[in-house]
This record gives sequence, structure tokens and C-alpha cells, in this order.
Amino acid sequence: MKAIILKQAYTPPSYEEFVLKKEENKVKIKLIASALNHRDLWIIKGQYAGIKYPIVLGSDGIGTYRGEKVIINPGQNWGFNENVQSKNFKILGLPDNGTFGDFIYTESKYIHPKPEHLTDFEAAALPLGGLTAYRALFSRAKIQKKEKILISGIGGGVALFAMQFALATGLEVYVSSSSNKKIEKAISLGAKDGINYTRENWHKDLLNRSGGIDIIVDSAAGTTFNNYLKLINPGGRIVIYGGTQGNIQNLSPQILFWKQATLLGSTMGSEKDFIEMLRFVNKYKIKPILDSLYNIEDINIALKKMEEGKQFGKIVLKNN
Amino acid sequence: MKAIILKQAYTPPSYEEFVLKKEENKVKIKLIASALNHRDLWIIKGQYAGIKYPIVLGSDGIGTYRGEKVIINPGQNWGFNENVQSKNFKILGLPDNGTFGDFIYTESKYIHPKPEHLTDFEAAALPLGGLTAYRALFSRAKIQKKEKILISGIGGGVALFAMQFALATGLEVYVSSSSNKKIEKAISLGAKDGINYTRENWHKDLLNRSGGIDIIVDSAAGTTFNNYLKLINPGGRIVIYGGTQGNIQNLSPQILFWKQATLLGSTMGSEKDFIEMLRFVNKYKIKPILDSLYNIEDINIALKKMEEGKQFGKIVLKNN
Repeated sequence: MKAIILKQAYTPPSYEEFVLKKEENKVKIKLIASALNHRDLWIIKGQYAGIKYPIVLGSDGIGTYRGEKVIINPGQNWGFNENVQSKNFKILGLPDNGTFGDFIYTESKYIHPKPEHLTDFEAAALPLGGLTAYRALFSRAKIQKKEKILISGIGGGVALFAMQFALATGLEVYVSSSSNKKIEKAISLGAKDGINYTRENWHKDLLNRSGGIDIIVDSAAGTTFNNYLKLINPGGRIVIYGGTQGNIQNLSPQILFWKQATLLGSTMGSEKDFIEMLRFVNKYKIKPILDSLYNIEDINIALKKMEEGKQFGKIVLKNN
Repeated sequence: MKAIILKQAYTPPSYEEFVLKKEENKVKIKLIASALNHRDLWIIKGQYAGIKYPIVLGSDGIGTYRGEKVIINPGQNWGFNENVQSKNFKILGLPDNGTFGDFIYTESKYIHPKPEHLTDFEAAALPLGGLTAYRALFSRAKIQKKEKILISGIGGGVALFAMQFALATGLEVYVSSSSNKKIEKAISLGAKDGINYTRENWHKDLLNRSGGIDIIVDSAAGTTFNNYLKLINPGGRIVIYGGTQGNIQNLSPQILFWKQATLLGSTMGSEKDFIEMLRFVNKYKIKPILDSLYNIEDINIALKKMEEGKQFGKIVLKNN
């Protein structure tokens, strides 16, 4: 088959012939489309433990199995504890071959009917980002109708799913970004307000405008994370699913305990999370926001777009 | 009446005559004994907002009301949200006059029968520390039988209650201290193991000895707090109820999200927490650990002992 192959770290992956080995106890899915995640970039940069080469990249995918369109749960072997993944947990695209190819083998329990209200490309964009946002909001932060939520870095896949899920649940959604254009787009999609976090004292401004935030969903962390503690209401929760800005500094224990605040690490999600996420997306007819669509052989153009961080929504790859 | 009065910050309080005003809608308790909390020290040092002078200090107390011995819940006006205290929440001893005197006025809903298995002095030691430990462990960390818990700074009132509550619940208890003597005492009381946190790489040592910790209860925070993230098991929780070592630094978001870890700020407790704490203490016949007993007029000797941090257990004051 043809697939996007990574042969070694720090080199661009290439679209070429690849012999995909048949695997017992797994079903073979003919893939239609896939989507990029930041994880793909990090793997290419060698920032993941346990990389083996050559590997077919890709975590998100949709395809056909026995004539039915199916969506694949990329989070596998979660284990029996809903609170945390087991040591055997893995995500498609490393160490197992992933979704950027003509075919993939996966266990049948990880395939689910494609949501009917979605196009193939929308469905391809859903799995990993949808799963991550769902777990962060529902299993971890336990969001409630009418609460106020701030979603940082709007435009990223998980952040946009978080916004859509929060809006569908009836929360008041605030967003942040370094791009005013992305903030405007988020407001046009239903966010109440947004703030450019490159402005000085942005958190004081947002505190005034929002009257305080109940939940923050963040993937940046870093030196300004401590402002979140000032921004949240008593009893507030902050969910962290990434750390692009590095370690958290200057976190006040006094604010933390006096506000009875909660910091929640969250990543990916369980099989239960995935099934509930699909049910939620079907119930509220949520449509993933697509930034762009590329032919699979244009993978390196697509990756460059992701690396520049200019996208608003998911970058989708279409198979030949 | 006679009482311990603070007339201004940074000056030692004194035992002297004080006219306690009658308050409508409150009951008058004749106090038998009281106990010290770090809060009293901080108030004396002017580190609390909203201090008014003169004030009768003291949060913990036990006394008699209509011939019955009663214990007083010092956490008042919590409000209707179990997740966090209301803006009206207050603790006896500031801004309301506290327990270090012959009498106190308080609302009748805050008095409860003294646990029968406790002496008057043991009962006096229970309220604020027991409440704080109970909320941290049960309402916040939701401890479960057979989990492994690390309690830092053993010897302090809340830390010892946390140890006793965790042991009664069937957890495996580890402690830390800068004093080997305190660690030995904790082990003699049922802790499985303990570690001196002044040793380099103590967390690696404890990781080896314990096989990983599920819950950490901490009141220090500071620059070494980040070691806790390395020490906890996947799905672990860290409860923070104090911050004597200052702001938290260098917290890794990656460890936080990959371990699905949870940081929980916790302080004092609700009326529900207090009632449940009393029920728990009665059920398991828990006896507060007393460090020492002073006559109320020796308040400044007692405060000095607390300030030096040499106590193991609660410091109790006996009324004349």
C-alpha cells in the first residue's frame, strides 16, 4: 500500500510504498481520510519515547470495514481504571502503524460507526482531538451548564472541540489566543468573548469582562500559568492537557487552598470516554471545524501549516 | 471575663479582663479548654486580612452549655456550596471573638455533643485541625482503603489528624519531617515508614521504599513541591492545605497530564465536613494527640513552643 512513512527523526516523512503486515485478531480497515495532530509533529521531531522506524504516522482516521464507514478510536489498551491509562496504553501512529495510509489493522473493538451527520472529512478530524477535549471537560473538570469556561489557544484542534462541547452543554465560553483573527472567528462560532494573551495584564482585563471564570482548559502552562489562579472563581478547576510553554512557575499555594481550586492533568481518554464522546457528538450534531484539506502526498505542506500554528481547526488528509 | 486578648499586631497577647458583649441569637458557652492553631500565630503577626482590635484569640474550644459538654465548630457561615466557602465564611478568633476565654457566644447550630471517648483536653484539640484534615482527605482527595498516602510535616496538628484518619480508613501511611524523632513517633503510632525531607533526593528514596504514593497531603509547597509529581502514582492526587515554603516552582505540565494527576487546594471545611468528621472520630474512637497542656495564662510560653515547631500534636490550654 501507499502510506506516509517516517524513516528517522528530524527528516520529513515521505509518501511511498509500504508493506503493511497482516495482523491476527485485528480487522483491516480501508482508509478514506485522516487528520493531523501535534503529536505527529512531535514524533517527527523525535520527542516521543519508544520510536521505531520505519513507521506509518497518523492517529486520526476514518475508513470502511465490510462496506460500512467506521471511525477509529486511536487510544488503545487504556485498561480497567477510568482514572488513568495503564502502562500498555498506546495511540495509533506509534508504536503501532497509524492512519496515514491506504489501510490499517486495528482491533474491532476500536471501530465505531461514523456519525451520520458528518462528512468523511469531518469524521476524520474527530477522534483524538474530540477524545482529549471530552475527557478534559467531562471526565475531569465535570463541566456544568451555565458555568464560565476559558479555553486557551483557540484554533487548535482540542481547544475548538472543547469550545464546541462547552457551548453544546450550555456554558458561557471565553477564549484566548495570540491572534485577534482567531478570537473573532471563535466569537462568530458562539464564544461570548475573547482576549489576546500577549497583552499585558490580560487576565485582569478578562476578570473584569467575565466576572471570573469557573473552568480553564489549557495546553500552554509556563510562566504565566499562575495568572489563571487569580482569574478563577472560588471552587474553580483548571484542566491541563499540554505544556507548550514549559514548566509552571510561581503558583501560589495560598490562592490554591483558599479558593479550594483544583488542577487536573488530562490526556487522551479511555474507551468509555471515546464512546461517550461519539454519543455526545451525535446527540448535539457537532461538526468538527476544518482548517484545510490536503491530498495525502502533500503531507509536508500540511505539517508545515501546523508547525506555523496558523490553522483554525483540523488539517485533514484525503487518501488517493 | 478573663481572656487572651490581642491588642495590636506584633505584640504578645495578654491574659486579662475583657467585657464580652452579649449577642442575640447566639448561645453562651462556658469554656473549659481550648487549643492552639498556627492561625493564632499568623493573626498575632498581622498576617490576616480584616484584623480588628482588641480581639479574643482562639479557634478551638470545648465547654458546657445547659449542663452538657459541647464542642464548637469554628468554621462558620460556610454557605450552600460544598465545593467552596462563601464570602461570609469566618473562623472563630477573627473577626469574631474566639475560644481563649471564660465564655464565648456562638450560634447554636455550631455546637455539638463532645465525643464521649475523649477527655476534655482531647476534645478541645479536635475542631479546626480535625475539620481541615477531614475535608482534605475525604471531601477533596477522596481517599480509599489500601491506597498509599504521604503526609508531610508530621507532628503538626492537621498532619497528625490526617495520619490518624488515613490509618483508620485502612491506608498505608508514609510521613515526612525534618525531625527523625517525629518520624519515629509517627511510626510508633502506625505509620508504615517515614523519610527526612532534608536529605538529598529523599523523594527517590521514598519512591523506592513505597513503590509510589497515591495521595500526598502537604502544607509546605515551595521549590521542592515538584518532586511530589515524580513520587505519585498515575492517577495520584496531591492535597495542599498550606504554603509555609512559599510558591510552587518548576511544576511539569507533562508529568501532570500524563499521570492524570490532580492538585487539590483545601482549607478548613463545611458544616457537613464538621459533622461527618465528628461521626468518623466517634466511630473509630480516634483520640487527638496532645503535645502539651498549659494553663491559659501561660499563653505566650505555649505560643513560643508552637513557633519553634518542636511540638508533636496539639498544644492545649486549660481554663482557670
